[in-house]
Amino acid sequence: MKDLDCIFRPRSVAVIGASTKDGSIGRELLRNIIDYEFNGMVFPINPKAEFIHSIKTYPSIVDVPDQVDLAIVVVPKEHVLEVVEDCGKMGVKGLVVISAGFREVGGEGVKREEQLVQIVRKYGMRLVGPNCMGILSGFPDVRLNATFAPGQPLSGSTAFMSQSGALGIAIFNLTKQLHIGFSCFASVGNKADVSGNDLLHYWAEDENTEVIAMYLESFGAPRVFTELAKKTSKRKPIVVVKSGRTEAGSKAASSHTGAMAAPDVAIGALLRQTGVIRAGTIEEMLDIILAFTKCPIPQGNRVALLTNAGGPAIMATDACVNYGLKIATLSEETRKQLASFLPAEATLTNPVDMIASATEESYRKSLALLLADENVDMVIVAFTPPVMVNPLDIALAITEVKRRYSKPVVSFFMAEEEFFEEFPGMVPDSPPIYHFPEAAAGVCAELYRYHLWQQRPEGEVRTFDVNRGTVQKTFDDCVKQGAGYLEQLDAFKVLEAYGFPVCKALRVATLEDLREAGERVGYPVVLKVAGREIVHKADIGGVTLDISDEKELTWAFLEMKRNLSVRGIDEKNHKFLVQEMSQPGKEIILGMTLDAKFGPLLLIGTGGKYVEVMKDVTFGVTPLTDLDARQMLESIRGYPLLKGVRGEAPVAVEVAIECLQRLAQLVTEFHGIAEIDINPIILTPDSKDCRVVDVRIRLEDCAEENA
Amino acid sequence: MKDLDCIFRPRSVAVIGASTKDGSIGRELLRNIIDYEFNGMVFPINPKAEFIHSIKTYPSIVDVPDQVDLAIVVVPKEHVLEVVEDCGKMGVKGLVVISAGFREVGGEGVKREEQLVQIVRKYGMRLVGPNCMGILSGFPDVRLNATFAPGQPLSGSTAFMSQSGALGIAIFNLTKQLHIGFSCFASVGNKADVSGNDLLHYWAEDENTEVIAMYLESFGAPRVFTELAKKTSKRKPIVVVKSGRTEAGSKAASSHTGAMAAPDVAIGALLRQTGVIRAGTIEEMLDIILAFTKCPIPQGNRVALLTNAGGPAIMATDACVNYGLKIATLSEETRKQLASFLPAEATLTNPVDMIASATEESYRKSLALLLADENVDMVIVAFTPPVMVNPLDIALAITEVKRRYSKPVVSFFMAEEEFFEEFPGMVPDSPPIYHFPEAAAGVCAELYRYHLWQQRPEGEVRTFDVNRGTVQKTFDDCVKQGAGYLEQLDAFKVLEAYGFPVCKALRVATLEDLREAGERVGYPVVLKVAGREIVHKADIGGVTLDISDEKELTWAFLEMKRNLSVRGIDEKNHKFLVQEMSQPGKEIILGMTLDAKFGPLLLIGTGGKYVEVMKDVTFGVTPLTDLDARQMLESIRGYPLLKGVRGEAPVAVEVAIECLQRLAQLVTEFHGIAEIDINPIILTPDSKDCRVVDVRIRLEDCAEENA
Repeated sequence: MKDLDCIFRPRSVAVIGASTKDGSIGRELLRNIIDYEFNGMVFPINPKAEFIHSIKTYPSIVDVPDQVDLAIVVVPKEHVLEVVEDCGKMGVKGLVVISAGFREVGGEGVKREEQLVQIVRKYGMRLVGPNCMGILSGFPDVRLNATFAPGQPLSGSTAFMSQSGALGIAIFNLTKQLHIGFSCFASVGNKADVSGNDLLHYWAEDENTEVIAMYLESFGAPRVFTELAKKTSKRKPIVVVKSGRTEAGSKAASSHTGAMAAPDVAIGALLRQTGVIRAGTIEEMLDIILAFTKCPIPQGNRVALLTNAGGPAIMATDACVNYGLKIATLSEETRKQLASFLPAEATLTNPVDMIASATEESYRKSLALLLADENVDMVIVAFTPPVMVNPLDIALAITEVKRRYSKPVVSFFMAEEEFFEEFPGMVPDSPPIYHFPEAAAGVCAELYRYHLWQQRPEGEVRTFDVNRGTVQKTFDDCVKQGAGYLEQLDAFKVLEAYGFPVCKALRVATLEDLREAGERVGYPVVLKVAGREIVHKADIGGVTLDISDEKELTWAFLEMKRNLSVRGIDEKNHKFLVQEMSQPGKEIILGMTLDAKFGPLLLIGTGGKYVEVMKDVTFGVTPLTDLDARQMLESIRGYPLLKGVRGEAPVAVEVAIECLQRLAQLVTEFHGIAEIDINPIILTPDSKDCRVVDVRIRLEDCAEENA
Repeated sequence: MKDLDCIFRPRSVAVIGASTKDGSIGRELLRNIIDYEFNGMVFPINPKAEFIHSIKTYPSIVDVPDQVDLAIVVVPKEHVLEVVEDCGKMGVKGLVVISAGFREVGGEGVKREEQLVQIVRKYGMRLVGPNCMGILSGFPDVRLNATFAPGQPLSGSTAFMSQSGALGIAIFNLTKQLHIGFSCFASVGNKADVSGNDLLHYWAEDENTEVIAMYLESFGAPRVFTELAKKTSKRKPIVVVKSGRTEAGSKAASSHTGAMAAPDVAIGALLRQTGVIRAGTIEEMLDIILAFTKCPIPQGNRVALLTNAGGPAIMATDACVNYGLKIATLSEETRKQLASFLPAEATLTNPVDMIASATEESYRKSLALLLADENVDMVIVAFTPPVMVNPLDIALAITEVKRRYSKPVVSFFMAEEEFFEEFPGMVPDSPPIYHFPEAAAGVCAELYRYHLWQQRPEGEVRTFDVNRGTVQKTFDDCVKQGAGYLEQLDAFKVLEAYGFPVCKALRVATLEDLREAGERVGYPVVLKVAGREIVHKADIGGVTLDISDEKELTWAFLEMKRNLSVRGIDEKNHKFLVQEMSQPGKEIILGMTLDAKFGPLLLIGTGGKYVEVMKDVTFGVTPLTDLDARQMLESIRGYPLLKGVRGEAPVAVEVAIECLQRLAQLVTEFHGIAEIDINPIILTPDSKDCRVVDVRIRLEDCAEENA
C-alpha cells in the first residue's frame, strides 16, 4: 500500500460534520460522495441527526462500529482538534480537513494548525488541508468525490492539484466541458501535511495517472520538487500554472496564502530545467492536458494543415510558425493522390484547402494521405461548417482515420457551441477539437517540445577538481572582518581556486610598487581602483585600460589618485590593482544571487556596462547539468554575436559554459555566498585567452552554513 | 442617400438564382432573408420555379414589376455577366455576387471578373463580391440577412467586414454566443468593386455603427486606409485581425486570395500610427468588440479587482500588470467602508477578496464603493461560484451598480457553461463577462490604450526647408549612370541638402590629395574606402579611425591600399574618403525600404555593426508626424541607453527624431529611392556634435516617377 492510498484508496469514509441543512458544505459533500457512487461505506457523523440522505448517522467517530480509513472533517474550527484526536484513536489513516480558520487567518489559527499537525503526526495519519475544497479519486475501483463542488467531474487519467479551492470548482466546470477526466484531484489548502511534492511523488507512481497538472500559488520545497519533477517528467507530462508571477500578483498571492513569494525567474528556470510544462493561463493548461491525454507524442515538428476554408488555415499557419513549428512540405506522391479526388479549385500545397464543398469523405481520404506522408509529423485539421455538412460527421471521420496512425491529429472546428456540447459524448476517442486555430497550434508546439525533452540526454552535473581549502580560508578571513564584500584580489583568488581563467593582477599602494607590478604582470596592463564599496569603478574614472609602459602607468596612477580626490573619495580607503590587459573579445556576465527558498539562482548574459539596461540574461538553478548550462547561454539574445557574425571568428563559448558549471559548483559547495557578479568575462576566439576581468563576491552575514 | 445605402438600405431585393433545392445556397439565402424579417419586398428569380418558400418567383429580373434596389446573385458563374447586365438595365443599384469562379480561380476567371466590373461601372452600380458569403444589414428599419450562413446573427452596433467567407460563418456562430450584434456585415470576397476602404468610409459615417471590425488577409490600398482610419479611429474604435503575418501564413494567404503579401512590420506600423486596434486572434477581437460595445472609455489605467476567491484574482492581477495596467491603491475611506460590512477574513487591499461567503449584496455594495473611489479608473469583477450563490444574481447585482457609474466594469465568471448561455438574454446590459481573468485584463488594457489614443494630439507632419534641386540633380546624374547605389559623397550630399548633420568628408585619390584633405577636414580624421559595391567596409580593413596627423594619415592610406590589394580588390575601382572624426556618442540607425504597395517603410533603431543580429528597430510609415517619430524612437529597447544610464549624460535624442522626420520628407518627395541605410548616426550629448557617419542610398532602376 502506498503512502497516500489512505487518501485516494480508502475502503470506508466518515464525513464528520455531515449535515441535514440544505446547501451546507456538510450536506453537499455527503451528497457528492453518494452521487459519485463511492465504492465503499460512508458514515455520516453528526451528534444531532439520526440519518442524513437516508444513511444512518453516528454521533461521533468513536461510535462507528466499522474500521474507517478516511475522515472528511467539516466541523467548525473550534471542534477540529478534538475530532481529529478521536480519528487518531480510532485508527483512521487519512484526513481531509475542509474547515477553515487555521494558518490563513493568522494569530490563533497558526497555533491551531500547529496543534493539528502534532496530532496527525502522533497517530501517523496523513492530512490534506486544512482550509480546502476536498479531494476526489477517479480510480475506477474507488470513485470518491469528497468535495463540496457542484457537479460531478469525469473520471479519467489526469491528476490535478489546486492550491486554490475556488479555482478547483472552476476547474471542475471547465474540465467537464472539455471532457477531461480525473484520476485524482486534491485541493491542498494550507498544505499543513500533504504537500504538492507528496502528491507529485504519489502520482508519479500511479498507473491510472497519465498527466499531472498543478495550479500553484507558492512553492513549498522547490529543491524536492526539482528532484521529483526531473525524475517524473520524462515518463509523464507535468503541466503547471504558477500564479503570482508579477510583483503585484505575488503580493496578492501571499496575502491570500500567507506563503513567501519567490522570484518568477527562479521558478521559470526550475521548471525549464526539470522539463515541466509551464502554461501561462488555466485555459492554456486545459488545452495542453487535453492534447496529452488524446495524442501520441510526435517525432518531429513538421505540421500539415487540412482545411475546408482559407482564412482559418492562414491563422493556423501563422500560429504554427510563431510557435516554432515547421509547415511540412508534402511529398509529390501525396499531392498527386490528393489531386486525384479533390476539386480543381483545391490547394494541394500545405495548408491543403479542400474548399467548402469538402465532405466527410474528403476529410477521411485527405487526412489518411497526410498522416501517411513521411514528411509530416502531425496534422492540424480545420473545419468551418458550410451549409450542408454536419460537424459531427467530420469529427467521426477524422477519428476513424487517426485511430490507424501513430501521429498526433489536432483539430479546431469554428462551429456552433452545440457541437462542442455534443461531440465528446458521441466521439469519445476523437482527437482534441479546439475552438480556435491558435489553441490547436499551441498544443502541437507543446507536444513537440515534450518530444524534445524526452529525447534530451540527462546531462551531467560536473564536479571539477578545485581548491576548496583556499576558498574556505578566504571566506573565513572575510567573515572575521565582518563579511560583506570580498576584497577584489580575494574574489579573484576564489575564482582562481575554482579554475576560472582570471586576469593576472597585483595590488599596488605606492609609486614604488608600480614598476615591479607592471613588469610582473607584463605590459600592456590595466590600472584599477579596488575598494570594496566602489561598485561602478569606470564611472568615477577608476579604470585605465591599455597602459603600454612604465611611464604611462605612473602617469595613470597619479591621474587616478587625483581623480578620486577630486570626487572627495579618500584615497586611503582604496587599493589599486595592476592587472593583465585582456585580449579583445566579447563581454559576458555570470552571476548568482541566493534566494532564501530556491537556493542559488544562476545567471548568464551579455556582459559589460549596460547589463541592467539591456537585460539580456537567462537564469538557472542548481543542480545544473552541462546541458542546462549550454541551453542557458544559447538562449540569450546576444548568442549569435558570440558565434561570430559578419566574418568575425566565433569566440570560445565553451569557456563560458564551463565557467557557469564551475560557478554552480562553487555556490553549491559554499552556502554562505549571497551574491556573485562576474562582469565581464571576456570571451576570445582562442579559449586560452578568455579572461575574467572583474568580479564582486558578497558573503552572507552568517557564514556558518558553509559546507 | 449615401454611397453604399444601395447595399445596406435597399427597399427591395431580388435573389437571382433562388432555388427550391434543399440545402442549396439559393434556397438557404432566401430563407435567411425571410426569417430575418427583411423590412421590404423580396423577389426570387428562377426560370423554372413558380414560387419558392411560398413567394411568387419570376423567370428573370426583367420580369419583376417593381423597382429592385439590390440583387443577390447566386447563379452559376457562366450566367453571372448576363444576369448582371439585366440588373443594370432594370436600374438595380446594388449587387452582391455570391457566385464563385472569378479572379480566385485564375485564367478565364480573371477575364470574367474584369467584364463583370465593366458592366457594373457602365450602369453605375455598386458590387460586393464576387465569391463571397453575402451581406447583412442589422439596421432596425432594414433587417436584411442576405447570407447563406446558418443561424440568424443578432442586430446591434458592430460593423464587420470579413475577407474570408468561411470565417464569416464562424463569426456568426461566435458573436451569437457572446451576444455581439451587427449593424452591418459584409463578406467582401474578391473585392472587385466594394473594398474594405469603401466599407470603412461608409461605416465611419453610419450612426448605427459604434465599433468597426475587420478580418483582413491583404491590404488593397493601404494609403487610403491610413487616411480613412486616422480620421475615424478617434471617434469609433476600429479593430483589425490581419492574418498571413508570418511568411508561411502569408504564402497561404496569397495562394488563397491571390493578393500580394506586404511585410507584417509595415502593417503593424500603419495600424499603430492610425490608432487601429490590432487583435492577434479572432478570439481576442471578439473580446475587444464586446468590451467596446458595453463599456465607457476609462480615464486612466488604475484597476480595482473585486473577487470572492483568491486564485482567480491573483491571475487577474498578474495579467493586468503584464498588460501594463496599474493595480489601484484604494483610498482609506473605501477600505473603511468595505470593512464595515465584509467579514474579518476578507482582504481590503486591492484585489478586494470578499471570500466565498460573498452574496449579491456584498458584490453590490463593494462594487459601488470601488467605482466611487477616485483612485480607481476601472473595476474587474471576478466570480467563482461557491455552492449556494447563483451567478445570475451576481450578474444582475453588478449590472445594476455599473449603470450608475461612468467607469468601465469588466467581469469574468469561472462558472458553468449554462450561465454563459443564459445571462446575455436575461441581463442584456450586463458588463462584459468573460470566462478567464486574462481576457478581462486584456480588454481593460485595450480600453485604456484607446483612451490614450483619443487623448493623443494629432501631431504634425513637418515640412523642413530643404534643397530639393541638389537632390534632384544628384539622382538624375546617378540614373544616367545606371542608377543603383549612389557614390558615398553623393549620398552625403543628398542628406546634407535635407538638413542632416553629416560628417565633413573629402574624396582623395592620391597621396598628394591627402595632405590638403586632412587639413581641410581638420584632425583627427577618419580614412575610409568608398566603393559603391563595398557594403561592410570595416570587415575588409577599409576604415581607419582617429588619425591624428598627416604622418598617420599617409601611413593609414598606404596600409589600406595594401589591405585591399591583398584581398584581391582592384584599387582602381575604389575611392577613398577623408572624413571628420565624430565625437564619441551612441550609435543609432535610420533607414527606409520601399514597399511596392505600402510605399516607404521607415526604420529607426540601435545602430552599429550588429544591427542585423540585435534587431532592435521599430518601423513607421508615411505620413509620419512628429509624435509618430518620437514614439518610434522611444519604443526601441536601447532607448534607456540614449537617455543616459549610470551617470552618463543623455544624448540629443531630438536630433534623431528630427532626422527621422527629415528622412520621411525626403522619401515622400522623391519616390524613386529604393533603400536608404543611415548607419550610424552618432548621437552626442550636445546636439551640435551629432553626426551622420555613414549612409548608403540605392535608387530604383526606373527613377521617372520622381515627384
